[in-house]
Amino acid sequence: MRSYNRQADQMRPISFTRNYLMHPEGSVLVCYGNTKVIVTASVEMGVPRWLKGQGKGWVTAEYGMMPRATGTRTQREAAKGKQSGRTQEIQRLIGRSLRAMIDLEKLGEITIVVDCDVIQADGGTRTASISGAAVALIDALEWLQRNKKLSQDPLIGLVAAVSVGMKDGKALLDLDYAEDSSCDTDLNVVMSQAGGFIEIQGTAEQKPFTRAESETMLSYAEKGIEQIIKAQQAALGW
Amino acid sequence: MRSYNRQADQMRPISFTRNYLMHPEGSVLVCYGNTKVIVTASVEMGVPRWLKGQGKGWVTAEYGMMPRATGTRTQREAAKGKQSGRTQEIQRLIGRSLRAMIDLEKLGEITIVVDCDVIQADGGTRTASISGAAVALIDALEWLQRNKKLSQDPLIGLVAAVSVGMKDGKALLDLDYAEDSSCDTDLNVVMSQAGGFIEIQGTAEQKPFTRAESETMLSYAEKGIEQIIKAQQAALGW
Amino acid sequence: MRSYNRQADQMRPISFTRNYLMHPEGSVLVCYGNTKVIVTASVEMGVPRWLKGQGKGWVTAEYGMMPRATGTRTQREAAKGKQSGRTQEIQRLIGRSLRAMIDLEKLGEITIVVDCDVIQADGGTRTASISGAAVALIDALEWLQRNKKLSQDPLIGLVAAVSVGMKDGKALLDLDYAEDSSCDTDLNVVMSQAGGFIEIQGTAEQKPFTRAESETMLSYAEKGIEQIIKAQQAALGW
Amino acid sequence: MRSYNRQADQMRPISFTRNYLMHPEGSVLVCYGNTKVIVTASVEMGVPRWLKGQGKGWVTAEYGMMPRATGTRTQREAAKGKQSGRTQEIQRLIGRSLRAMIDLEKLGEITIVVDCDVIQADGGTRTASISGAAVALIDALEWLQRNKKLSQDPLIGLVAAVSVGMKDGKALLDLDYAEDSSCDTDLNVVMSQAGGFIEIQGTAEQKPFTRAESETMLSYAEKGIEQIIKAQQAALGW
Amino acid sequence: MRSYNRQADQMRPISFTRNYLMHPEGSVLVCYGNTKVIVTASVEMGVPRWLKGQGKGWVTAEYGMMPRATGTRTQREAAKGKQSGRTQEIQRLIGRSLRAMIDLEKLGEITIVVDCDVIQADGGTRTASISGAAVALIDALEWLQRNKKLSQDPLIGLVAAVSVGMKDGKALLDLDYAEDSSCDTDLNVVMSQAGGFIEIQGTAEQKPFTRAESETMLSYAEKGIEQIIKAQQAALGW
Amino acid sequence: MRSYNRQADQMRPISFTRNYLMHPEGSVLVCYGNTKVIVTASVEMGVPRWLKGQGKGWVTAEYGMMPRATGTRTQREAAKGKQSGRTQEIQRLIGRSLRAMIDLEKLGEITIVVDCDVIQADGGTRTASISGAAVALIDALEWLQRNKKLSQDPLIGLVAAVSVGMKDGKALLDLDYAEDSSCDTDLNVVMSQAGGFIEIQGTAEQKPFTRAESETMLSYAEKGIEQIIKAQQAALGW
Repeated sequence: MRSYNRQADQMRPISFTRNYLMHPEGSVLVCYGNTKVIVTASVEMGVPRWLKGQGKGWVTAEYGMMPRATGTRTQREAAKGKQSGRTQEIQRLIGRSLRAMIDLEKLGEITIVVDCDVIQADGGTRTASISGAAVALIDALEWLQRNKKLSQDPLIGLVAAVSVGMKDGKALLDLDYAEDSSCDTDLNVVMSQAGGFIEIQGTAEQKPFTRAESETMLSYAEKGIEQIIKAQQAALGW
Repeated sequence: MRSYNRQADQMRPISFTRNYLMHPEGSVLVCYGNTKVIVTASVEMGVPRWLKGQGKGWVTAEYGMMPRATGTRTQREAAKGKQSGRTQEIQRLIGRSLRAMIDLEKLGEITIVVDCDVIQADGGTRTASISGAAVALIDALEWLQRNKKLSQDPLIGLVAAVSVGMKDGKALLDLDYAEDSSCDTDLNVVMSQAGGFIEIQGTAEQKPFTRAESETMLSYAEKGIEQIIKAQQAALGW
Repeated sequence: MRSYNRQADQMRPISFTRNYLMHPEGSVLVCYGNTKVIVTASVEMGVPRWLKGQGKGWVTAEYGMMPRATGTRTQREAAKGKQSGRTQEIQRLIGRSLRAMIDLEKLGEITIVVDCDVIQADGGTRTASISGAAVALIDALEWLQRNKKLSQDPLIGLVAAVSVGMKDGKALLDLDYAEDSSCDTDLNVVMSQAGGFIEIQGTAEQKPFTRAESETMLSYAEKGIEQIIKAQQAALGW
Repeated sequence: MRSYNRQADQMRPISFTRNYLMHPEGSVLVCYGNTKVIVTASVEMGVPRWLKGQGKGWVTAEYGMMPRATGTRTQREAAKGKQSGRTQEIQRLIGRSLRAMIDLEKLGEITIVVDCDVIQADGGTRTASISGAAVALIDALEWLQRNKKLSQDPLIGLVAAVSVGMKDGKALLDLDYAEDSSCDTDLNVVMSQAGGFIEIQGTAEQKPFTRAESETMLSYAEKGIEQIIKAQQAALGW
Repeated sequence: MRSYNRQADQMRPISFTRNYLMHPEGSVLVCYGNTKVIVTASVEMGVPRWLKGQGKGWVTAEYGMMPRATGTRTQREAAKGKQSGRTQEIQRLIGRSLRAMIDLEKLGEITIVVDCDVIQADGGTRTASISGAAVALIDALEWLQRNKKLSQDPLIGLVAAVSVGMKDGKALLDLDYAEDSSCDTDLNVVMSQAGGFIEIQGTAEQKPFTRAESETMLSYAEKGIEQIIKAQQAALGW
Repeated sequence: MRSYNRQADQMRPISFTRNYLMHPEGSVLVCYGNTKVIVTASVEMGVPRWLKGQGKGWVTAEYGMMPRATGTRTQREAAKGKQSGRTQEIQRLIGRSLRAMIDLEKLGEITIVVDCDVIQADGGTRTASISGAAVALIDALEWLQRNKKLSQDPLIGLVAAVSVGMKDGKALLDLDYAEDSSCDTDLNVVMSQAGGFIEIQGTAEQKPFTRAESETMLSYAEKGIEQIIKAQQAALGW
């Protein structure tokens, strides 16, 4: 039996709480079941040095996990003095995914920094982060528009992400922690609102997967992402 | 006029939400007005190497601020690769304060690690952290007792903390960010449930303060802390 | 026209030079066209602390790029004092891929550390590293066997890797640097000798890709990997 | 019996040796009994980037301890690669204290960096550092005046610092190491020449202290600081 | 018997392979027997900040060892997060030696960064690096000339380096690893093409050496360096 | 005219003040003219992990410079987070030199850590450090003997060090900062009490030096070191 009594191709309950914090231009609490991530989008006028003078903007992401987001305490990366390979891999993934939402030329010399801080982890923290960040990013764009910082609309469209896995020969959508730890294959998929693939990252944890399994997993992902995008749109009042 | 329409010797609204997260042995969301801190208490059987074999326990604290807890984004310490002097000063203060709650001999060879993560900052993050951590620590002790890990009760009593300031010759209790930035003196006070002083840290930001001002500020602090301890007790159902 | 006058579904010339260095238990110079990587496999008796006492072995990988492997000089990571996110992402990918070659239980408490050092980069350094490392790992296993360190054969089979991309609506196998920099989608695929997928990492660099494009890319990858595995086998004299 | 045969409210012998080194604009060897600190004040024309263009100056402090200033060797912070929380806390305290001596607007865009290096530690290294630094800072101001770098006199007045403790219910002024290690409360006090409080940092090491004890300790501190300021003035020939 | 059947005052076979890599302005594979170092010289227009505006150029060097250049695996410095004292000592030595080849005033505001990466170590890696770097540097100068970046010829002449040791009272030229590990004294000598000494670094590993031994070692070094310079010249077609 | 009115082959006034600090087993203030270094020798029972169980001792050295030992302030290495290449090179040199004084087998499993902290720099800080450390090391050995920690006498003899330079074709003994900055060649020499060479490190700063110049410099060094050893012996009361 899966958590929340769900079928193999069903998502956990998902929610997006906008304006979760008072300071950021965009802030969202995103929940995929028990996985909870605070996402903020911060506007900074100007761009990093390597991009200066090209008239283009930049979107970047950072990811962190509170030490006790997990079942046993994880050492604080600020105390260790460096971010783990996993953290860097995830924040690179989030950044690339969000840049697919924005026409950087139209954004102009503005940077949007997205921070995803996991306060409770139960599987799918990177996919929840991406979907939540998409909403926070929209709010930051609206802030820019309200404050007359944009001359054109740089938005291409939403993105959303979900994980799929193979366990005992069966595909499962939106893995929770227990499923993620025991599955044979773990596939993270990021898609655009228009239905195109942005990122596919599949890893055979136990044994190689087949072409057919890959097909099934992608179909499940498409189904899940369609539903997530509806929830994002509802939260945004679109 | 002060925020929340309050008098010079009044606290902001304070709240303690216990069991805020699913994984930790103790977890509390503490609010002092708009200042919001997630505090967790994690039990680790065993003690740090330097304490091994002495039959004593240890309580330590770490402190962090989410990058967008503040009005403008603060660089993530994990990305910078080190904790600021301010962070280290605060976590040392929190740790010392919490150790005053516990008879470490009676705790036995157990470590409790408290994490204070500020998700929204509006002045008083260190004092809110201490007061919230006291509650989370109690929950962790109860977890230890429920799980038969303690042979004696190591609790001495609660601690709580509040800031007081001098502004234009007038004392103010529980400074918010605007007051904190503009006051002449900033005094953080940590007290025990029994009314003793654990820590006093007073800093003249603009001009030196007098013995009499110090007296007034300490009286305000006593008043505030009495009220905080009542709120802690209410949250704990004592 | 592609480099080496090749068709869209053709590999660059590939080669594996075994015993490239005198000290390591396994060492291979792998070339994919102008991309050249020195791969070594080092045997260390014993396992990392977190794995001790479980009777299992470990395979891990590190990746580096000589400063002038690239068209303009890249700062030395040892001088910067940390490995980039890209480096960590790649070495995690190589490590996972190689662990799919080995039954760690049968390896016993032995660690094999694979080092991939790129001396000349022209696209596909991570895929060349994986394919070369597979050969070096076999040599290290043979060294272990010759030296009577193994009680059973831990080898599951070879793995190999290749990149595929979409450019102007057309799939291209084994991208060189010029193609990699200008393509719309970049997909890295790792497969087992038996034809199963170990890793799929696809990224839409410019615009999202479709399900059909994903299918074509995977087919090209299968074709390329079949050829690489033949070259590995030839090098190994299998 | 206290060291140097002194009463509870007596200081250890204190001394300030000016022009201790040949290179710095101000340099002082300060001794509080066996505690010996070399303090230098270095003038740097210009201010840190964050202060540029505001016409204001800056005073900052760094603190270090020679590895064998202590009874057993302490690891060199330069070798560990980071400054401890204690070090950072102390140098922040020294910096704040010294900035209370100077009208930064009148200083103009000049930075004075104070370095306090403990060559022998026997309790009170931070308070000795502050009192010594006050003298070195005056010498640096005089150097600036002699070299016509100042258009106005930025000096507000001297500061001095001392520790007080509670031990077995009795207050003790100017704790040496043995007293500091065994006392119940440790209070560091920084005051201005005019008798105002700059910093009060009280910590209950063993058990909470009372309002009355705090009063006694502050009175002792006032007495000690009066004497230190006289010694500073004598050293300066005021 | 020495390796390669050589006399006490004979070098191992040495070789310089120019244009070893496709990207760098100068690149050489240098071998002293089994010691193999890839040396590259990278041209960067402009100079480090501290040298700006003086019309002078700069030559600097970095040194690294691939983890399995050695008999047992050495930890990767990029993974450790810092370069060892040995590495820094060597790269400082290489840099100083190469700057003796060039009139920096005539070079103009151009930087040449030399990277020496040891792929196989068997004694003499620093001396082989210097001799190989001298050739790569010449190639970089020629690249500058071909590309009309130089207004004058900044070359002073070649430099070359060799080690000499004392073992059981006997001098030995060009120590391999086995000799280096067991000798009493190790002397590294860098000389100019014109026969002057650039660097002499002698260390008594086991017992002090005498004036007379120093004389013999220097004579051996002169002999070896003469031969190395001939090989450099042959490789350069001079 | 040289400082202190001295001839080309004369030393600056040198002095060794023993028992300079209260805590260390050996402590010396060494002065070579205006160059002043505090040297301490700390005894630690036991040896580093890599030496355990071999019955041998260890002697190691660390070197630091107070920020304002120099004419302009040098950034504190503890604040930068790493020791410079120069610092590491010097502490490696000091360590090797001191190990030539001691039969490590006879020392047994004891470590002596020598710290050299330059409080005032005027040329020759590394050579003064070595000569001063030799005296502090003797005092630490005597402490070990008084405390019955040694079963045999591990002392081989004193070492001492001095710099020599070539300036305008003339050799100069014991360079001060002004000479060191302007000379053509800088040679540091470490010798044993018995007259053997421990270390020779010569660097042509401006132009190569000849065999004959090397001879003259070594003769000057021998003369200087003879005198330093006499001063060490006098300080030790030998």
